[in-house]
Amino acid sequence: MLTSRQQVNRLDRETALCISLAARPSNHGVRFHNYLYAELGLNFVYKPIAPADITAAVAGIRGLGIRGAGVSMPYKQEVIPLIDHLEDSAARIDAVNTIVNDEGELTGYNTDYTAVASLLEQHGVDQTLPVAVRGSGGMANAVVAALTDHGMRGTVVARNHVTGTSLAGRYDWEFSGVVPEDARLLVNVTPIGMEGDLADELSFSPEEIDRAEVVFDVVASPVNTPLIRAAREAGKPVISGAEVAALQAAEQFALYTGVRPTAEQVAAAEDYASQR
Amino acid sequence: MLTSRQQVNRLDRETALCISLAARPSNHGVRFHNYLYAELGLNFVYKPIAPADITAAVAGIRGLGIRGAGVSMPYKQEVIPLIDHLEDSAARIDAVNTIVNDEGELTGYNTDYTAVASLLEQHGVDQTLPVAVRGSGGMANAVVAALTDHGMRGTVVARNHVTGTSLAGRYDWEFSGVVPEDARLLVNVTPIGMEGDLADELSFSPEEIDRAEVVFDVVASPVNTPLIRAAREAGKPVISGAEVAALQAAEQFALYTGVRPTAEQVAAAEDYASQR
Repeated sequence: MLTSRQQVNRLDRETALCISLAARPSNHGVRFHNYLYAELGLNFVYKPIAPADITAAVAGIRGLGIRGAGVSMPYKQEVIPLIDHLEDSAARIDAVNTIVNDEGELTGYNTDYTAVASLLEQHGVDQTLPVAVRGSGGMANAVVAALTDHGMRGTVVARNHVTGTSLAGRYDWEFSGVVPEDARLLVNVTPIGMEGDLADELSFSPEEIDRAEVVFDVVASPVNTPLIRAAREAGKPVISGAEVAALQAAEQFALYTGVRPTAEQVAAAEDYASQR
Repeated sequence: MLTSRQQVNRLDRETALCISLAARPSNHGVRFHNYLYAELGLNFVYKPIAPADITAAVAGIRGLGIRGAGVSMPYKQEVIPLIDHLEDSAARIDAVNTIVNDEGELTGYNTDYTAVASLLEQHGVDQTLPVAVRGSGGMANAVVAALTDHGMRGTVVARNHVTGTSLAGRYDWEFSGVVPEDARLLVNVTPIGMEGDLADELSFSPEEIDRAEVVFDVVASPVNTPLIRAAREAGKPVISGAEVAALQAAEQFALYTGVRPTAEQVAAAEDYASQR
């Protein structure tokens, strides 16, 4: 048990403030960032916010000199006309998940795109594998763009014909209601397997997993989704949503602070952030 | 030495954020409020901010759902047209030092006025004493209003003829360049005796102090100004700026959190806040 005095937040007038903006903020970012600020001795503090009004919230980033803001659903497109610059990652997919404030100049980035692109590199994913991406929402857009820019092509698989054909058309991919037989990289970007109602469901069939060479699940919580477990049991290399979450948060962290945490520090912060 | 994990700011998505807005924020409020949040186990955090733009900053209070904001120089009048309601204390003196956000409705208070009014009550200051108030700035305005509402009258003593006659006229007081001989309550609301260039100066003469029955110094730092020391040596009852600072901060604290700290808790927080 700490004494009250030790528990006092060590903030002062120099402390830089970072926030996140989400209709329903999670506790992941606040735990991840504040852990690393403490670990690295940086005078920063991070606070998740459910904004009352996104236009006033972005005005507040400028007016209050807030250093950075994570942007989540449903604000990733809405903030674009409210900021000054779009960096390539955000411009590529017309979605911002990170705002950096440089003395009143706001620049939008997309570290989901950056993280997926980096993971495809790091895992040395063979560019010639035909891909099946299940999902057609905002994160699917980031994933298909990163795959395309890694030199890959494939099929968007979605129940929603409108968003599915739109996403496929944007990147010159195929659209289908079912997973093509030739798919060798399987990517799940739906909530299937996520904590909650869909926690026990498998986003690709055992036969599809057997035919695959690499399996990628963007669901981060739980770390071991049914898809990741099934792919590991079938002996397939996997890329997990926890890797995406940690890497995108680390990218945000580096943008805000100018300090790039080591892989060990990121792993420790991710471990701390995913408790409870 | 705490481990990194213990030093992590205990913030989450439920944490209420309070700020202060000042061109040159001090570290007093951040230490006072964060100490009491920890002491009382309240899920709040306080961060001082030097705003880039006061209009955008107040928009940010609304847009980001910031619970409360202390307001200091030079924004105490500027925020009035930007908020929704003026509570009596702020309306009385046309100056806001505290904004409370109730689900997007912003109300302005003035806890300097409230604190001075309370201290005059607490110390049982005799209403019939003729008063000399030295100073004619924003805080002198709060002090003269509180004295007037305590049923007292007297003289504004100031070198600046324009602001001095304006302040005196507003409350139907006298104005003078010198302290009247009949003054029995002496109040210093100038920087004389404050840390810095004027630290060794006495804001009233030894003869004026000898004639007084009560001496009140609004300077809070140091706690024992030359005026407070001289008055104590002359056996006069004193009211100190440290009392004003602690009480106005406690009032702010109660407005933000709905919890009124005890006198002992306020004293401990004030002690913590005035370190360094």
